[in-house]
Amino acid sequence: MEKQHSIAEALRTALGSDAVLSDPADRWTYGYDNSRAQAMPLAVALPSDTAGVRRVVQVCRRFRAPLTVRGRGTGTTGAAVPDEDGVVLSMERMAAVLSVDAANRVAVVQPGVTNGALQAAAGAAGFFWPPDPGSAEYCTVGGNLACNAAGPRALKYGTPRDNTLGIEAVTGEGRIIRAGCYTTKGVVGLDLTRLLIGSEGTLAVITEATLKLTPLPEAITTVRAAYTDMHTAAAAVSRIMSQPVVPRVLEFLDSAALALLRARDAGDLPAGAGALLMIEADGLAEQLPAAVNALQRAAAGDGLLEWRAAADPAEAASLWAARKALSPALRSLAPKKINEDVVVPVSRIPELTDGLATLAEKHCVRIVSFGHAGNGNLHVNVLGEEADLERMQACVDEVFRLVLALQGTLSGEHGIGRSKRAFVGLEIDAPTLALMWRLKDVFDPDGILNPGKALPDRPAGG
Amino acid sequence: MEKQHSIAEALRTALGSDAVLSDPADRWTYGYDNSRAQAMPLAVALPSDTAGVRRVVQVCRRFRAPLTVRGRGTGTTGAAVPDEDGVVLSMERMAAVLSVDAANRVAVVQPGVTNGALQAAAGAAGFFWPPDPGSAEYCTVGGNLACNAAGPRALKYGTPRDNTLGIEAVTGEGRIIRAGCYTTKGVVGLDLTRLLIGSEGTLAVITEATLKLTPLPEAITTVRAAYTDMHTAAAAVSRIMSQPVVPRVLEFLDSAALALLRARDAGDLPAGAGALLMIEADGLAEQLPAAVNALQRAAAGDGLLEWRAAADPAEAASLWAARKALSPALRSLAPKKINEDVVVPVSRIPELTDGLATLAEKHCVRIVSFGHAGNGNLHVNVLGEEADLERMQACVDEVFRLVLALQGTLSGEHGIGRSKRAFVGLEIDAPTLALMWRLKDVFDPDGILNPGKALPDRPAGG
Repeated sequence: MEKQHSIAEALRTALGSDAVLSDPADRWTYGYDNSRAQAMPLAVALPSDTAGVRRVVQVCRRFRAPLTVRGRGTGTTGAAVPDEDGVVLSMERMAAVLSVDAANRVAVVQPGVTNGALQAAAGAAGFFWPPDPGSAEYCTVGGNLACNAAGPRALKYGTPRDNTLGIEAVTGEGRIIRAGCYTTKGVVGLDLTRLLIGSEGTLAVITEATLKLTPLPEAITTVRAAYTDMHTAAAAVSRIMSQPVVPRVLEFLDSAALALLRARDAGDLPAGAGALLMIEADGLAEQLPAAVNALQRAAAGDGLLEWRAAADPAEAASLWAARKALSPALRSLAPKKINEDVVVPVSRIPELTDGLATLAEKHCVRIVSFGHAGNGNLHVNVLGEEADLERMQACVDEVFRLVLALQGTLSGEHGIGRSKRAFVGLEIDAPTLALMWRLKDVFDPDGILNPGKALPDRPAGG
Repeated sequence: MEKQHSIAEALRTALGSDAVLSDPADRWTYGYDNSRAQAMPLAVALPSDTAGVRRVVQVCRRFRAPLTVRGRGTGTTGAAVPDEDGVVLSMERMAAVLSVDAANRVAVVQPGVTNGALQAAAGAAGFFWPPDPGSAEYCTVGGNLACNAAGPRALKYGTPRDNTLGIEAVTGEGRIIRAGCYTTKGVVGLDLTRLLIGSEGTLAVITEATLKLTPLPEAITTVRAAYTDMHTAAAAVSRIMSQPVVPRVLEFLDSAALALLRARDAGDLPAGAGALLMIEADGLAEQLPAAVNALQRAAAGDGLLEWRAAADPAEAASLWAARKALSPALRSLAPKKINEDVVVPVSRIPELTDGLATLAEKHCVRIVSFGHAGNGNLHVNVLGEEADLERMQACVDEVFRLVLALQGTLSGEHGIGRSKRAFVGLEIDAPTLALMWRLKDVFDPDGILNPGKALPDRPAGG
């Protein structure tokens, strides 16, 4: 209580009293994200500029108080859940699009801007920023950068790491650093831009970002391809990915997902389909028929039941209906859901889906998978009742081991946060983890930036 | 002499005597790169595997001897020129393509493989690796990674940072680290892969790389667009870059380059042309006419004198003749040449070329520019006689200041090496440089990895 009072006072002195929240009701609302974890911080700071962010870091450093930066709290791993002994820095007052430079395909933004607001500003100039998480209308660009959050379009257009040119940030020592450049090529100095992207607020607080924009495509064609089973669908994904027309998105739904939709009479599914691919091609209107033909040639083969290209946006929306119906259906299917976004090499998707079926049976849980097939990035949903939680966790543990045995990775875009820290050591070896910890020490020698996130516990003596 | 003998002996013990060169004639040939700088190392080590690399690092650490890794020495900044008191580690015995995995678009290679050999192996499976430096047939992938060396195709397909999934490396402490993953998405741990790329051998020795491959395009169309002057050509570059068809390459030659070619009757240039764009589109054969039309619509406007699309490969080769004739012509024009690969935002290319003309006049030197216009990456060649070197350097100094004033960067792909270290502090501020130095210390606490390269001198007390 004493500490809570002192730290709130120090923040008020640093930022002005209208930029600090210390009422428990306010603090509570800044304490959770989409992981269902929650903790009440000592205070919430709302700086308006980089100098203010720096002052917040300095106060936290003085008090040795953990500092957790918050966009809109849409992450699923608890990376934005604060420490009970710490401070939340909310980026809500640093939410401007500072410039959209059409001639150079660049936007400069503050981290608190929503992905949707950035897309609107870029779109008015004929551009978009490729990262498109499911929560794009609500989540912030700063959060997208902190987690390297991507989405379906990453298949053709890349993740935030591929679409960010430069970053300004405040380190855990309160130093302002500027990395990267304003141009699409640049090799001066070490690449701190990409090192900060995906570091989940553990190295520095991002205060500004210079983003690479991409011209909006003239037209998009949506196709639904239905296959008898996951094996033939996955083989089609490999064929599609080895020809030159890269789809804008290449999503899939597994047989459990289709069974769920059928049980609800949702999605207008073709009879006998055991796996569904949702494919989009984009480009010049004049080029699209050739692109769609090339994709169709690659998709053709064993197990293909239906290739249905939408003739117009209304039909495209109806083809997407199955995919859109899935998340609400999942939510109502079972009260508890663990959603992991594992990645395996595309050719190993069938081994993964077979393995998931075996594990579901073994642990008496239900698993429904869908996701970004072109990247091998599957959203594996382990479902059950409250009483099943232990079995569900045991199953997830085995899912992770299976993914790593298949040369995969534990997360493609959700990140580690609090919830997957215990598993990082399965993927990254001890010398490499020890090095990461020492790099963290350089940025944040007092360990105040988002402790207990992203990296597993520090090795003994490390 | 004593040290030379001891270190060579220690390396022989570590690697076997057939893997160490200590004869001065041999050592001399490993002492230079394409920067014209040269130094004779104490010994040359030729390890065959990661364990051997590690032993070389351990020997250098014991002797506190500088260690410079060498591919084929094609760099232009002296990054591969060793210390006279140090050891060269040549990657020539670690030159295998370990796998080409077509189903997953991945190749795993040792760093000593040439870019050309990788392209041949990938090409046999229908793929390519986008980075294509001018020296691609001869230079190594390890060198490409160390310098983030790109080339013209980076415009559409990105640099090594965008086309590398994972890296194995040996740190300056002799620890083997493994970063990144085998898939196109992955957010577990800090992004050490991209941190090592472009670090010019100062952080760790790359011993293996997992590369992202791209399917070969079905067809390529080459176009030459001639403009009256650089201003109208640069405006066309901006227009081309703000529509959705990204050219495979978008190169330009300035008026000084064209004057040089005309004086030699080379290149079959259109009358009155003051700037030339070389444009290539790629994709499905069926899609190319629409792509070329879109590029032509964007290229059309003030100052366009000629739009000539090659009807066949022979005509394409003849269109490229002007560009290919340029480098030999430059070499014979003046005995001394300083070639800098600066970058400015595309919209500021006219200001840069105007500024270069002014600086050439002021310093009584000749400047010829050409390069990767779509990225704003200009190869600025300052030419003169032996006696002009001081004026040429003074001119380059002002070129760098002009580039930075235009929101540019000192190097797009050549890197810093030894030759541009003094200028890095103009681009990167002191707190950020101090942080980079401290990161270097984590990887290489004894400072044995390529000292005197990439970063400027360590700040006092840093």
